[in-house]
Amino acid sequence: MNSVRIIALGGSADVTRNMYAYEYRQSGSITDILLVDCGVGFPDATMQGIDYLIPDISYLEDKIDKIRGLVLTHGHMDHIGALKYIAPQLNNPQLYGTRLTAALADANMREFGIPNSVKVVDEDQVLNLAPFRVSFVHVTHSIPDATNLIIETPIGKFYHGSDYKFDWSPIDGRPTEVNKIVNAAGKDGFLCLLSDCVRSENSGYTLSEKIIDESLNQVLQRTQGKLIFATFSSNISRIQQAVDVAVKNNRLICFIGRSIRNNVEIAKRLKYLRYPKQSEAKENMLSNVPDSKLMLIVTGSQGETGSALTRIANEEHKRISTTAKDKVIISADPIPGNETAVNNVINSLSARETEVIYTDIHDALHVSGHGSKGDIALMLGLTRPKYSIPIGGEHKQMAQFKKIAMALGHNAKNIFIPKGGEVVTFEQSGNAFIDQPITLRDVMVDGYGIGDIDSGVLNDRRQLAQEGFVNIVIPLSKSKELDGVITIITRGFVFHDEKESKELLNKARSITIDILNKQTGDNIELKHRITKQLKRFFYDETGRNPLILPVIVQSNV
Amino acid sequence: MNSVRIIALGGSADVTRNMYAYEYRQSGSITDILLVDCGVGFPDATMQGIDYLIPDISYLEDKIDKIRGLVLTHGHMDHIGALKYIAPQLNNPQLYGTRLTAALADANMREFGIPNSVKVVDEDQVLNLAPFRVSFVHVTHSIPDATNLIIETPIGKFYHGSDYKFDWSPIDGRPTEVNKIVNAAGKDGFLCLLSDCVRSENSGYTLSEKIIDESLNQVLQRTQGKLIFATFSSNISRIQQAVDVAVKNNRLICFIGRSIRNNVEIAKRLKYLRYPKQSEAKENMLSNVPDSKLMLIVTGSQGETGSALTRIANEEHKRISTTAKDKVIISADPIPGNETAVNNVINSLSARETEVIYTDIHDALHVSGHGSKGDIALMLGLTRPKYSIPIGGEHKQMAQFKKIAMALGHNAKNIFIPKGGEVVTFEQSGNAFIDQPITLRDVMVDGYGIGDIDSGVLNDRRQLAQEGFVNIVIPLSKSKELDGVITIITRGFVFHDEKESKELLNKARSITIDILNKQTGDNIELKHRITKQLKRFFYDETGRNPLILPVIVQSNV
Repeated sequence: MNSVRIIALGGSADVTRNMYAYEYRQSGSITDILLVDCGVGFPDATMQGIDYLIPDISYLEDKIDKIRGLVLTHGHMDHIGALKYIAPQLNNPQLYGTRLTAALADANMREFGIPNSVKVVDEDQVLNLAPFRVSFVHVTHSIPDATNLIIETPIGKFYHGSDYKFDWSPIDGRPTEVNKIVNAAGKDGFLCLLSDCVRSENSGYTLSEKIIDESLNQVLQRTQGKLIFATFSSNISRIQQAVDVAVKNNRLICFIGRSIRNNVEIAKRLKYLRYPKQSEAKENMLSNVPDSKLMLIVTGSQGETGSALTRIANEEHKRISTTAKDKVIISADPIPGNETAVNNVINSLSARETEVIYTDIHDALHVSGHGSKGDIALMLGLTRPKYSIPIGGEHKQMAQFKKIAMALGHNAKNIFIPKGGEVVTFEQSGNAFIDQPITLRDVMVDGYGIGDIDSGVLNDRRQLAQEGFVNIVIPLSKSKELDGVITIITRGFVFHDEKESKELLNKARSITIDILNKQTGDNIELKHRITKQLKRFFYDETGRNPLILPVIVQSNV
Repeated sequence: MNSVRIIALGGSADVTRNMYAYEYRQSGSITDILLVDCGVGFPDATMQGIDYLIPDISYLEDKIDKIRGLVLTHGHMDHIGALKYIAPQLNNPQLYGTRLTAALADANMREFGIPNSVKVVDEDQVLNLAPFRVSFVHVTHSIPDATNLIIETPIGKFYHGSDYKFDWSPIDGRPTEVNKIVNAAGKDGFLCLLSDCVRSENSGYTLSEKIIDESLNQVLQRTQGKLIFATFSSNISRIQQAVDVAVKNNRLICFIGRSIRNNVEIAKRLKYLRYPKQSEAKENMLSNVPDSKLMLIVTGSQGETGSALTRIANEEHKRISTTAKDKVIISADPIPGNETAVNNVINSLSARETEVIYTDIHDALHVSGHGSKGDIALMLGLTRPKYSIPIGGEHKQMAQFKKIAMALGHNAKNIFIPKGGEVVTFEQSGNAFIDQPITLRDVMVDGYGIGDIDSGVLNDRRQLAQEGFVNIVIPLSKSKELDGVITIITRGFVFHDEKESKELLNKARSITIDILNKQTGDNIELKHRITKQLKRFFYDETGRNPLILPVIVQSNV
């Protein structure tokens, strides 16, 4: 029997790290694979030192010749950012995306020295990636040129509803193409809707971007000094709004931060962002412009270390500082995990009496790019799917999606909530079910290394972070007599130069010598005994559990 | 001239770690000190491995004989939890608190082997701690027996408004004693109001605890299996509400988690918590009670590692697991910094289709214990202070307090926002100002150590956490020839047993040998050169910066 299987290669129940495989099987054999998106994910607090997470493509390794193409839905990093790592490993499949999406993805790969290029598609084009036919639905989201996909397969139509909301007055004047969705749904509806669910905890509809204009204008008019506006560097329409308000009020704009400058450059070139040339001030000319004539559009809305706003807040920016006359708008919600960093930025600015306006105290200066309960219900109503799968959200948000769908009369058993690498299989008969999982692991990027860090290394990092380590170097003669001085080095354990620490380490040295004097076994047993006794000693003395690393250096003589 | 100086020994702009000194000076000399509260604070993400932060009392060290007493406002850990570390260091000053506060503080000190005992005061009692007179104002807060203090000094009256809200229908039937505040304010108002400001970002008044009853009852009635109710173990009135609803619906209650059992024990003994004995099931009897007849009241509302709820969510609890029939209520907001941990708990439970009800999706199952903008305005109106100082909040919340006070007609220069160790001085003349700061540092508790961890150790921990370390042990003969094998040990850097790692470390060994062969300087210079070259080598190869620790072991022969 033929079937289509949907596999989340970045794992289910993940907001970021988006990558989906649509796998077509004929009589049980895989014949064709369509890939959608290829984004990075972000490490949680337990993955210390990790730069990114990327989808695990080991499942695809022996199926590369079956890949018919990789279609990008929009230009956010959690949908395009892993191409630079993964595209080469997949023998550079043909990539497709709309104009801005393609430009952003190309720029990102180029920075990494990957010459891949994304084929630009028109939103009204239909991609024939037989046996798949892919058409694009323009949707409103927090980046221009965002799309959802209609994926026709030999066994039925899928609606790939990655990030979307229904904004009827978007900044670029192009609302979600509901007509395309309704037409494609036809009489019978889609076989399956995959739907963004990350805002499913929120009631009603997500508000239109439009509401921001007026509040931003009001804040600007009561700002005596400069206005600093922080948002996501990819949120080109939000940047356009800020620029428009600045220009209307005769303020010069200045873009601060590398990623915002790069994105603005691309968006300007492709005419997604427009403003009079003379309205922009360059960063090195700022000292010539009075603060009251200035709006800075900056990176750092997530409190990222080293970002423009964080450096300004910590008084570490070489050209920009703030006073009680300036105001700062943070036009973004903290992404889960970034709450503390954003909080620190707000507090540092507040401590210098710079007024900070953020979503907790003003709800009309940021709106989400994702649909709320109402938007999700509308999408269910437009697509009228037999089956549905919430995507791009965590389990708590998938649970809310299920509640919404059930309230609209969907049968609980037709709403799939896959876990980890679980596959959803759709059979030609019309039957569908959650299938056996594929093996998925967390592929971590750390520096130049991809996937060379495992949970063992992370566990060591965690222990080192919590407790530090004690390194005991023991020189032995060939006859296993102590031959020199036992060196003890600690880091992250106790303060190095305190008298108490020295006494503690001297006692540890005596314990080690005692063990050496009574030794019976081989070096491995010796190290084991030293580790065990020092572990107990340090815990008894300090209540801490440093990593203990004895090294025996045995002389040849 | 005589003066009163107010010093936040836990630092200003901190929500927790509450401890205040009121210092009386006669003709410039310190004659008397009154202390208020002595709480712990919680480490941020950069303070890895740290258990608690405590106030820095080094300022008091040479003034211990001037301390007239230490008054506790209520029994939360951020107001009493540091007594066990600090009271002995201050020669055990006389401690005062209301009945429940005293019992909780005593229990906390006793666990640590400190036999201190808090003198129980009646709320209508006036403490004569000359030259200070302290009276108590009963306030509503998320723990019974909470108070604010009226502190009369030779130069004027202070209102110490630590945590409070105005709840007119509290569970224990005892609203905030506004009459006492108004009477003490008298014709001229207080000299200064110190006011809780942590909820100053929220509009209106904080809602009454009362609203929770009905919503809790509704959730319970549609719960087929067991209901798990998580809240702060000190929130005795919230626990009473849960118990009442359970009893009314013929469900047995069971308390899970050490801290909740301890607090319930104390509250029951002092009659702050009441329920029929036969309504309680013991944990080891749970298997005899059908789930539909059960409400579990558990610790872990902050997603704390090892707490009952976290273990249940991760399927690690030895007796309790959840199904799709059970529901979990988290009746608490995540404290800043705990968002991710709480989120993980919600997701783990949701993944097993256990419905979780938390403040993001249901706002009538938790209310804060702190006053919102309306409560703060009311407090300003009741106390009519000449000066004011927001306390118990971060800078962003202090900024909002200032806005509220200014909207009520207070002069900006009479609202003090001290930073760090800045002191607020009130002179007999009626004049007041922000004075020179005292030196305050972060006193950290790690295991048994108090204050023995400094920023150097934390920096090491941070680098170890992010990058790991490489330890190179080099055995040299007396004549500085390599004498044996160079041992290289890494942790948290690269995966130990991979072929690539071995090659990498072998190359590092060769580089080290090359340096040894070309050596000129002494061992210190040698180690310096090895560190420098290996640092560059590892960065070029891996993009990472491990801590590099060369150890030279030089033989005597």
